[in-house]
Amino acid sequence: MNTPALVLDVGRVKANANRMLQHCQNKGVLLRPHMKTPKCVEIAKIATAGRMNGLTVSTLAEAEVFANAGFDDILYAVGITPNKFGRVAALTRKTGKTLVLTLDSIEMANAIASSDLDNPVLIEIDCGESRGGLSADDPALPEIARILGKQFRGIMSHAGHSYTTDQISGVKEIAQSEFGAAVSAADRLRGQGIAVEVVSAGSTPTVLHSEDFSGITEVRAGIYLLNDLAQFGRNICQLDDIALSVLAAVIGHNRAAGVMTIDAGALALSKDIGANKFLPHAGFGWVCDAETLKPTGLAVDVVHQEHGSIKVDDPSMFDQLPIGSVVCVLPNHACLTAAGGYGEYHLTDGNIWLRHDGW
Amino acid sequence: MNTPALVLDVGRVKANANRMLQHCQNKGVLLRPHMKTPKCVEIAKIATAGRMNGLTVSTLAEAEVFANAGFDDILYAVGITPNKFGRVAALTRKTGKTLVLTLDSIEMANAIASSDLDNPVLIEIDCGESRGGLSADDPALPEIARILGKQFRGIMSHAGHSYTTDQISGVKEIAQSEFGAAVSAADRLRGQGIAVEVVSAGSTPTVLHSEDFSGITEVRAGIYLLNDLAQFGRNICQLDDIALSVLAAVIGHNRAAGVMTIDAGALALSKDIGANKFLPHAGFGWVCDAETLKPTGLAVDVVHQEHGSIKVDDPSMFDQLPIGSVVCVLPNHACLTAAGGYGEYHLTDGNIWLRHDGW
Repeated sequence: MNTPALVLDVGRVKANANRMLQHCQNKGVLLRPHMKTPKCVEIAKIATAGRMNGLTVSTLAEAEVFANAGFDDILYAVGITPNKFGRVAALTRKTGKTLVLTLDSIEMANAIASSDLDNPVLIEIDCGESRGGLSADDPALPEIARILGKQFRGIMSHAGHSYTTDQISGVKEIAQSEFGAAVSAADRLRGQGIAVEVVSAGSTPTVLHSEDFSGITEVRAGIYLLNDLAQFGRNICQLDDIALSVLAAVIGHNRAAGVMTIDAGALALSKDIGANKFLPHAGFGWVCDAETLKPTGLAVDVVHQEHGSIKVDDPSMFDQLPIGSVVCVLPNHACLTAAGGYGEYHLTDGNIWLRHDGW
Repeated sequence: MNTPALVLDVGRVKANANRMLQHCQNKGVLLRPHMKTPKCVEIAKIATAGRMNGLTVSTLAEAEVFANAGFDDILYAVGITPNKFGRVAALTRKTGKTLVLTLDSIEMANAIASSDLDNPVLIEIDCGESRGGLSADDPALPEIARILGKQFRGIMSHAGHSYTTDQISGVKEIAQSEFGAAVSAADRLRGQGIAVEVVSAGSTPTVLHSEDFSGITEVRAGIYLLNDLAQFGRNICQLDDIALSVLAAVIGHNRAAGVMTIDAGALALSKDIGANKFLPHAGFGWVCDAETLKPTGLAVDVVHQEHGSIKVDDPSMFDQLPIGSVVCVLPNHACLTAAGGYGEYHLTDGNIWLRHDGW
């Protein structure tokens, strides 16, 4: 097989998806899986158990792919701007599917209201990360809802900072502020006579570990479908839950320097080292047996554009992994590794599933 | 225009290309431009001044694109392994063009010699980076050349560590070891009666600043075509030589937190912060006026998958860059930014040129 290549263990994807679906069912909350990690129609079908609606996406390119594949009720979770109105209108016109938009300003609410778009809109609430969103008590909140009028559908929040801890107790606290901010904003609007249908919140850690979903109508999460060392190092998944790896060939041995080189570097693995805060030896990914996915104990320590350099302390590893042999690298951060330009997943059963990168 | 999008200033590409062509002509050395940064046929034609041969590539996908476009004598500068022999053979069969291969081991020399491939081969020499390549005095060197027989074409070396300094004197020293290692290996083989046609070396910094090209038959460089903040911070280019930028829309203002958000994050810009060693305020790229490319003084300070967060100390910047307005971001490292999944360059004259990512 050509290397580097993205390898997907569909059995693990299904187990990950089913675990989350079951969890959300137990909690009595709707799951709206985030496709920003897999960007793949077949995985979306697994993630929704075939219900063909209720997805989250991070790009209009994803929205178009999923709408064309028959999915309805797709949430575009990145703040909308007028330069994208044309594509949004075209998607609705061509597919008849509903794309839900997101915004957090009076300016964009006015832009939507004065446009031809009639998409439903969620208002984003900041729950402490200071990225996108208004404070739940921002005076602009009811004004935006009123400007949107019948297009106003509800509230969304996202705690990207749920990754700042590896302690479940810390995640529970952040979940409380994420869910709390969304519910508080919704309650405030309802108190002013504004109907709020959707109260959407979540990230994989907060959805898995929150103890209180009251007031939340739906949760969003995505990385749980594939998982990675960043999730493993934060105790969000087990090593055997990681469904994504990069098949790479050993292309060089430098025994004198104690370095082995593979043909997966910065583009194939990404330069993300988000896992390393809680898993210091994650490197740019763990080198594993290509058949069993068991770690060899080696990590990709340095990445150049196409070369990954692996420090080798035990010389017998050079004999175990001769030049031309292949390894699988478990990703540091699956969202970025998968987006490296592969365009497709190679399944362990020989099939290929398409990925849809770009914008 | 849709955002994020990759914007190319072709005037700057041409100026960068012509400056390097002139420099190499002055030094009496052939330039074999590296397409790993632009991955684009039109840029390859500019880089070679239309001569339609003599390229370097970092993936077989690039090799196929350029061979299909009519380019001959293409060097694949990543160590070859047997799992790629089939594609190499197919490229030769389908296009009739010559792909030059690279290796650094007896094992791969034997694999080539016992295969059906008759591609020319260069032996890679390590010049101090301890990535790929043999030492110039490695006993295996003449053995490999003999195994390759008539397929042996010459020597290549690359000083990736030329980026460890921002001092021209430091670059000159590294150039000396890079070129010296290649020439020394070639001389050693010639001393044993082995003909060495090609002695290939280089990186943008070492090609620009070496004082001695004696014994070198060709140089390789690539990033000079586009440039970036990593080159600028190392005094390799001027700010006005950066030909690549990312057009992004302002999608949010968080005045309370002093944060502005754009729709270009980790995928659109990459997580590379290689520029920051010598340009501490490079962030993940400099925010510039979308028309003039003049820096605003702002940088992308935090990247999430699709969100770029910009710290704003001067509140008037929120008025200068309202939500929905566009900016151009000068890349920290162009090779990684351009590979973010765009698939195309938007030219300032409205045309589109294709990029060829993946493997």
